Amino acid sequence: MKAIVIHAAHDLRIDEVSAERPGPRDVSLRLANGGVCGSDLHYYHDGGFGPVKLREPMILGHEVSAYVEDIGAGVKTLKPGQLVSVSPSRPCGSCSYCQEGQRNHCLNMRFYGSAIPFPHIQGAFRERLVALADQCIPADGLTPGEAAMAEPLAVVLHATRRAGQMVGKKVLVTGCGPIGVLAILAARRAGAAEIVATDLSDYTLAIARAVGADRTINMVSAPDGLADYGADKGHFDILYECSGAAPALISGIGALRPRGIILQLGLGGDMSLPMQAITSKELDLRGSFRFHEEFAVGVELMRKGLIDVKPLISHTVPLEAAEEAFTLASDRSVAMKTQIVFSGA
Amino acid sequence: MKAIVIHAAHDLRIDEVSAERPGPRDVSLRLANGGVCGSDLHYYHDGGFGPVKLREPMILGHEVSAYVEDIGAGVKTLKPGQLVSVSPSRPCGSCSYCQEGQRNHCLNMRFYGSAIPFPHIQGAFRERLVALADQCIPADGLTPGEAAMAEPLAVVLHATRRAGQMVGKKVLVTGCGPIGVLAILAARRAGAAEIVATDLSDYTLAIARAVGADRTINMVSAPDGLADYGADKGHFDILYECSGAAPALISGIGALRPRGIILQLGLGGDMSLPMQAITSKELDLRGSFRFHEEFAVGVELMRKGLIDVKPLISHTVPLEAAEEAFTLASDRSVAMKTQIVFSGA
Amino acid sequence: MKAIVIHAAHDLRIDEVSAERPGPRDVSLRLANGGVCGSDLHYYHDGGFGPVKLREPMILGHEVSAYVEDIGAGVKTLKPGQLVSVSPSRPCGSCSYCQEGQRNHCLNMRFYGSAIPFPHIQGAFRERLVALADQCIPADGLTPGEAAMAEPLAVVLHATRRAGQMVGKKVLVTGCGPIGVLAILAARRAGAAEIVATDLSDYTLAIARAVGADRTINMVSAPDGLADYGADKGHFDILYECSGAAPALISGIGALRPRGIILQLGLGGDMSLPMQAITSKELDLRGSFRFHEEFAVGVELMRKGLIDVKPLISHTVPLEAAEEAFTLASDRSVAMKTQIVFSGA
Amino acid sequence: MKAIVIHAAHDLRIDEVSAERPGPRDVSLRLANGGVCGSDLHYYHDGGFGPVKLREPMILGHEVSAYVEDIGAGVKTLKPGQLVSVSPSRPCGSCSYCQEGQRNHCLNMRFYGSAIPFPHIQGAFRERLVALADQCIPADGLTPGEAAMAEPLAVVLHATRRAGQMVGKKVLVTGCGPIGVLAILAARRAGAAEIVATDLSDYTLAIARAVGADRTINMVSAPDGLADYGADKGHFDILYECSGAAPALISGIGALRPRGIILQLGLGGDMSLPMQAITSKELDLRGSFRFHEEFAVGVELMRKGLIDVKPLISHTVPLEAAEEAFTLASDRSVAMKTQIVFSGA
Repeated sequence: MKAIVIHAAHDLRIDEVSAERPGPRDVSLRLANGGVCGSDLHYYHDGGFGPVKLREPMILGHEVSAYVEDIGAGVKTLKPGQLVSVSPSRPCGSCSYCQEGQRNHCLNMRFYGSAIPFPHIQGAFRERLVALADQCIPADGLTPGEAAMAEPLAVVLHATRRAGQMVGKKVLVTGCGPIGVLAILAARRAGAAEIVATDLSDYTLAIARAVGADRTINMVSAPDGLADYGADKGHFDILYECSGAAPALISGIGALRPRGIILQLGLGGDMSLPMQAITSKELDLRGSFRFHEEFAVGVELMRKGLIDVKPLISHTVPLEAAEEAFTLASDRSVAMKTQIVFSGA
Repeated sequence: MKAIVIHAAHDLRIDEVSAERPGPRDVSLRLANGGVCGSDLHYYHDGGFGPVKLREPMILGHEVSAYVEDIGAGVKTLKPGQLVSVSPSRPCGSCSYCQEGQRNHCLNMRFYGSAIPFPHIQGAFRERLVALADQCIPADGLTPGEAAMAEPLAVVLHATRRAGQMVGKKVLVTGCGPIGVLAILAARRAGAAEIVATDLSDYTLAIARAVGADRTINMVSAPDGLADYGADKGHFDILYECSGAAPALISGIGALRPRGIILQLGLGGDMSLPMQAITSKELDLRGSFRFHEEFAVGVELMRKGLIDVKPLISHTVPLEAAEEAFTLASDRSVAMKTQIVFSGA
Repeated sequence: MKAIVIHAAHDLRIDEVSAERPGPRDVSLRLANGGVCGSDLHYYHDGGFGPVKLREPMILGHEVSAYVEDIGAGVKTLKPGQLVSVSPSRPCGSCSYCQEGQRNHCLNMRFYGSAIPFPHIQGAFRERLVALADQCIPADGLTPGEAAMAEPLAVVLHATRRAGQMVGKKVLVTGCGPIGVLAILAARRAGAAEIVATDLSDYTLAIARAVGADRTINMVSAPDGLADYGADKGHFDILYECSGAAPALISGIGALRPRGIILQLGLGGDMSLPMQAITSKELDLRGSFRFHEEFAVGVELMRKGLIDVKPLISHTVPLEAAEEAFTLASDRSVAMKTQIVFSGA
Repeated sequence: MKAIVIHAAHDLRIDEVSAERPGPRDVSLRLANGGVCGSDLHYYHDGGFGPVKLREPMILGHEVSAYVEDIGAGVKTLKPGQLVSVSPSRPCGSCSYCQEGQRNHCLNMRFYGSAIPFPHIQGAFRERLVALADQCIPADGLTPGEAAMAEPLAVVLHATRRAGQMVGKKVLVTGCGPIGVLAILAARRAGAAEIVATDLSDYTLAIARAVGADRTINMVSAPDGLADYGADKGHFDILYECSGAAPALISGIGALRPRGIILQLGLGGDMSLPMQAITSKELDLRGSFRFHEEFAVGVELMRKGLIDVKPLISHTVPLEAAEEAFTLASDRSVAMKTQIVFSGA
């Protein structure tokens, strides 16, 4: 079967790989859709990010939906033909972090398509996949495209939970790529009263407004667009920092009120931060990393119509044109979420 | 001007009372709509509730909307003609609780229509009202009926905040009067994934479903309707107890999972509780009382279309028929929220 | 070997039982000291408590220290001869609660000496015991008596953690049996500024003062002793309810300030509670049940001299006089913690 | 009367200033001891810190104890002759932050000896001081030196509260000046099980051990001294960052376990931080700034013998030798806390 394999920066290939053998608690899946994520792009463009470097060829991909083809003898919760969202989160369940309920910090995590450990964890962009039944959440009623959005949605739901309760809160989102736009949806779902979003692209800001941002600011055309929010020590209660860019974080810090919470989602290298402001306003900068139980929560919220991710899916391309998907996904002036179609229903 | 005055249990009169004089930070209001609340009904039927007893005639009412007629010299945020929601919460701002930010526990609270202190705090069911500008939240775009729902909405938003974050949570609501139905709206707004509601009346349960409950159970026709949720130590994360009835609370305790949270909203007298279950499941029973900043939050959420309270307003009657409003409001088989119209736009 | 077995209420025997076989991750232990706990006494006097009833003979005991005799091949953290505190908490590690980090709510918990499941979980009052290495916390430097106090200490440390931060807080403890007195030690260790304790026995109150209570009140001689604390809506931030008696809880509720936290530790049957006060003061009644990671924490705090439990150990009796230990432990006018000595160093 | 006035960097004078007039809620005080704080040193050496710059002469000082000389007619809680700790925190009580209970973020704060607002807020290093009775906490039983430690103690107690509960936690303290050493005392008081402290000076580390650190590391002689704590994603739960130096913060980040909390107390300018580690370990970097109610808490804990600050007071000098106090306080190889004596009992 075919798989999308990154060999080195800019060396993306569709390789032939061998199939896996399912065990009794496993499910055999035929892939439906796969979304290209920012970390996939980092591998494609740079061969990694920060201290994480590609050291061997790796199948990419961790945002996927699939059709169940066959189920192991011990699987009771799924049936052949069913569309599922496939969670890439595969913690060991027995290390000290798993036993404390912090499964996203598992010492032996096998998250699809990650070069953090070596050997790398192979990803999910392949025509057929064997997964644990626990990874597969029924997605009946969703399109394959929506079902493949469960992973980035889980990322922002996890961050939202890290913020504590959000009813009536004033929220700022810096960076309106897929994670930023999903953060708008999540914050609204969690009860945020006011949502302002910033980016450098009019294209992404238009989608931000379409999914519910009360106001958007293009920081290119209005570089001081957040300045007014700094009066009386600041305006916003919560900042989702989704750009990974220091200037965005710094502008957000100025607009946060004392005791404001920063949810740091954007990945980046070192950043120079205004510690005096963080200290004297008693800000709370919280990293947020992946998710676990929020994956199933996201699928449930989509299925009940409580979160609608369809406006984000801007492009779908066939497996044969995979590299085009990566090129598209890299251009934030024309694409929000680009998905690769591995097979139809 | 006319006011609705309770003199004793079942002695409700429309009395002529004198007008107040506004100060520089005050606003003169012409009342629009006033909703009949459970505590108003307690005064009407029983002359009080629990240890709280009527000791002198008292103007009832604390759920009101109004039109601004005149503003004091120091008022900058309002203009004549504007529809406003009027908060009944008037803390002193300087006692120890106010200074700690717990304004709903103010030692000198003057909450409209309350017999807790003596002399009693006169209520807002009168044709004209003088209020602090800070109590008046602009309600442009809302109907007078919706604007008068801000108060009970604030009650459930306050309780919701007491629960911490709610994204993806499983929620049970026991008691589907106005507070219970608003709790469904609030829980949904805060991100609850599953909401089950119970009551004894098919009428209220139909409204519960209409505003978003995933499932409703009539505990008369299905007294064991919650039993299945008790498997594996319980199912629900959060219980809004809105009935004030011990059997409802006890049934909810059985259906809550370990570490579940009970938001106690229903007022009642003493209740016999299963302490062994509360202890061994480590449940968290949290009283919730009134609100403060959640009043403005509720108005904002209604104005943005994020919470729609219109399905709750079942009856509107003119001031002249005030007592009929109290009779209607007491019958949960035919009425959800009954409002009295004091004047039109 | 000998074991202390309860056959029915008041039918306590020293029976001969067979030894267990250790596995590779296990440790063979020779018991040192065993403390008699309130739940042991419930089995002895009443054959159970609340809905929990003895249905077959059961070895009692879950507060024990022991000497390591032999270790399994896979055990690296212990060595023969070492004194250890033995945790009775044995969760499965794989059920849904364990995987969420709530191990004290394990669906398959095998807690020593508990008649909650059937077959009952046999206890630790036996001359020799096989335990998982993970259950054994090195107690070097402690006396066998102190080491056997790790279990009830863990109970109050768990409750203390449930209260959130305690620095500078005003704390009330109702009920000064071993759990109440340990609660005083734990609250002081956690930074409580003021600690008041109540009981019906001058003997226990003297120990309460000895371990650090700022003030004690005998509710027999001064039944209104807490009344002054009810001024201005209440005085205490936190109540450890360790009596399991409704009057104690009710008196404490009156003395708690708004938003006060009740840690319910005392086991009892149904209780009639003043719900109006709980609701209007927005109290937070939190059940607290057993512990998990707090067991090792308690041993560490004792070993560092940060908590001193020695003043609690009032009596030690030899195994042969086990029933006398139960009689002594039942009389709160003369005994605090009674321990049975199974063997010496 | 005499006052210690900073005119510009390195221009410290003992000036004659006029006395203030007390009002009915005020107290006239005769200063006892005054401690030299890091921010005083910043004004002395650099004329300010970060964006804060001295723009006019300013009386320094905010860590003071005093004797009550006279009380206003409305003051009931104090009596002449009494030793008091004087809180420098004077919020307005009526701005939006005060009304939310966040008094340390008051928009109109008049904190002694601060050049943040202009005109600057004059400090407390003067022979006589008029203060609100609310600022004065009775310090009976303490030495004047201890009483003057209430302010820096309040700073670390506030930070400790920001950390949530600390029972059994593993704590790292980077930077062992007075704030770092007080952090050790506060963390121990709050229940920390293990405390490791780092600094560049053997002198301060010896005091750190004397007040309870389990282990100290001199990062000059052992620059990799924290490396082992980075195994398995990290060891410490909480970091008090008291150095204001980026290398200390960065070394601490490596030693923190996932979900660890950083309490940022050290003031500094911009810092370059490893955001990838903060995000992927989901660290929580919390600024902590001043205090309010923790001031009285600190005095109470000292009076009850629950925190002993005496080991920190390394030098006391008479008012006439004030500049020497500033020189001493600047040398962390020989001085911990230097206090100026304004008058004796």
